[in-house]
Amino acid sequence: MSSALTDLARYPIVQAPMAGGASCPQLAAAVIEAGGLGFLAAGYKTPEAMYEEIKQLRGLTGRPFGVNLFMPQPPSDPAAVAVYADRVAGEASRYQTVLGDPESGSDDAYDAKLAILLNDPVPVVSFTFGCPTRAVLDAFARVGTRTIVTVTSPVEAETAQWAGADAVCVQGVEAGGHQGGFRNDPADDAPGAVLGLLSLVALVRETVQIPIIAAGGLMRGSQIAAVLAAGAAAGQLGTAFLVCPESGANARHKAAMTDPLFGRTELTRAFSGRPARGLVNRFIRDHGPYAPAAYPQLHHLTSGLRKAAAKEGDPQAMALWAGQGHRLARELPAARLVETLAVELDAAASIYGPQAPRGVVS
Amino acid sequence: MSSALTDLARYPIVQAPMAGGASCPQLAAAVIEAGGLGFLAAGYKTPEAMYEEIKQLRGLTGRPFGVNLFMPQPPSDPAAVAVYADRVAGEASRYQTVLGDPESGSDDAYDAKLAILLNDPVPVVSFTFGCPTRAVLDAFARVGTRTIVTVTSPVEAETAQWAGADAVCVQGVEAGGHQGGFRNDPADDAPGAVLGLLSLVALVRETVQIPIIAAGGLMRGSQIAAVLAAGAAAGQLGTAFLVCPESGANARHKAAMTDPLFGRTELTRAFSGRPARGLVNRFIRDHGPYAPAAYPQLHHLTSGLRKAAAKEGDPQAMALWAGQGHRLARELPAARLVETLAVELDAAASIYGPQAPRGVVS
Repeated sequence: MSSALTDLARYPIVQAPMAGGASCPQLAAAVIEAGGLGFLAAGYKTPEAMYEEIKQLRGLTGRPFGVNLFMPQPPSDPAAVAVYADRVAGEASRYQTVLGDPESGSDDAYDAKLAILLNDPVPVVSFTFGCPTRAVLDAFARVGTRTIVTVTSPVEAETAQWAGADAVCVQGVEAGGHQGGFRNDPADDAPGAVLGLLSLVALVRETVQIPIIAAGGLMRGSQIAAVLAAGAAAGQLGTAFLVCPESGANARHKAAMTDPLFGRTELTRAFSGRPARGLVNRFIRDHGPYAPAAYPQLHHLTSGLRKAAAKEGDPQAMALWAGQGHRLARELPAARLVETLAVELDAAASIYGPQAPRGVVS
Repeated sequence: MSSALTDLARYPIVQAPMAGGASCPQLAAAVIEAGGLGFLAAGYKTPEAMYEEIKQLRGLTGRPFGVNLFMPQPPSDPAAVAVYADRVAGEASRYQTVLGDPESGSDDAYDAKLAILLNDPVPVVSFTFGCPTRAVLDAFARVGTRTIVTVTSPVEAETAQWAGADAVCVQGVEAGGHQGGFRNDPADDAPGAVLGLLSLVALVRETVQIPIIAAGGLMRGSQIAAVLAAGAAAGQLGTAFLVCPESGANARHKAAMTDPLFGRTELTRAFSGRPARGLVNRFIRDHGPYAPAAYPQLHHLTSGLRKAAAKEGDPQAMALWAGQGHRLARELPAARLVETLAVELDAAASIYGPQAPRGVVS
């Protein structure tokens, strides 16, 4: 296995875990067989469903893969959730469904998932929305599993290194879907406060010694070359893989990525209670400014109405997660996308080669 | 001259024009003599003062340099300005001064500065806060001046190319000081709406054919290598040069860059009426959320009290412009900084060379 893992350093292309359906064994297998590192997303799934996907993926490839876990979340203010439930009640009626129970659970069955992954180890486990304890990371190290913690700031990276993570996934403001940092604090919502990827890589690189996987807005091999030049060991791409035929994302979601109707993205708590980047649609415009920092309560609350909207084929109340580069999405089979990214990466890897930039003012 | 300009493509390090004092002939000359492209900032200066600096710089170096102009601004709502003036009146008293006249002019003497620059041409002119007309860009082309337009989105880049600019300076959300895009519209203030640099470079690269100068958060040569790999022709650095001894920035401003007291930056209209990134201090916290989109009216209004705060040595009411990478600032002479950046750029320029990244999971 170790030689297969070493190969990943040669073509350091990672497929981001995308909870909610996009990530599936077929997508991960295609990425992995083409030489990338593929991920399953355990978030929002039962432990049994997670394990079932792991077994399916093992049937599709013998090469290393990763599983992403969501960390348990602190309680949130029930009054704020109730006020938001009143606000979006009309949305549920509109899509002929009812709101979900916001208190359906905030630990994502973390302990049960840990038990499965420690009992039948996988090559890589990554974590989102918090840092595991040292004891958990040590337990994974003992069974031979490499661990990656998602961070959005240098201080989070320091914490992850201290806790014993093998690597950090640094996520810039450009990233689609949820910002995966440790906190969910409205105090962090100041305009422009979230770090851009290239600043984040430079800051984290000078803060920790463990390898950095860079995530956020990466759509082209030239951008992967960029984060490698800045000091990352790999680039992780979500939106780029979301549109692949193997991805389990909803067809409307895939089509929206390059639909001129959806021209821009923003960070919103409207769907889940945590800041997440999606294509701006009616639901975000109407409810985003009023959504409290209550994750995953708002996820549970809106999950049914989002599914109902998807069933109706109405993208205006779906969570159209998308990174800032969504317009550059290419609907290629995942293996072909990995190969294309690798070619682009090689072409851009030496800035003084034949692809050297044109002069600014010459 | 053309061979000196061609050299810039070999070490594509550009010193950002920083209006308000940081950019001065001494800083630009040091950068230029070390092989970078240095800029003077005409913004907020009289045409005569601009011309005086050009003549000083010509006395210090015979190599190419640039001058940055601010574009004239549309009128803003006097009532919103009056309300904000009421809010910050106490700040003026606190620093024993009076508020400035918000209507001291919103065209930054653009026409008079154009006349000087067309009469006695300089090698490069760049523009901020809007796109010049085709006629203006053509006039510069006829006198042999290269033009660069600052943009923050692909559509602005397309406009700049259409108008005849020779290059675009693409500015990511990470950038310190003012966002230099064409519009000042609160509709663009949605959370996370501003593009990160690496996404912006990729999007603009596939939108226009003219060269791209990448700006925003760049502090290390490895980051310049990154933007070159992504397709830019050069990296432009402001905050990195602001702390140099040759920079005219206030000593408190310089010291604040690496002062742990100032841990983060945000985009604020508090000082000028346009979104600008600064270290978060009392003034931003108290007034940022209430500042209207009224530029340069708020600049004129708060200019005196900021100067008074600086004179008292109180950084809490100064505009401490800073990019997201401010913690990485190095207080080196400008020539030494250019040389250091060039060495770092060379070292990072081939990601498959001796500086190849460590494996992610190997």
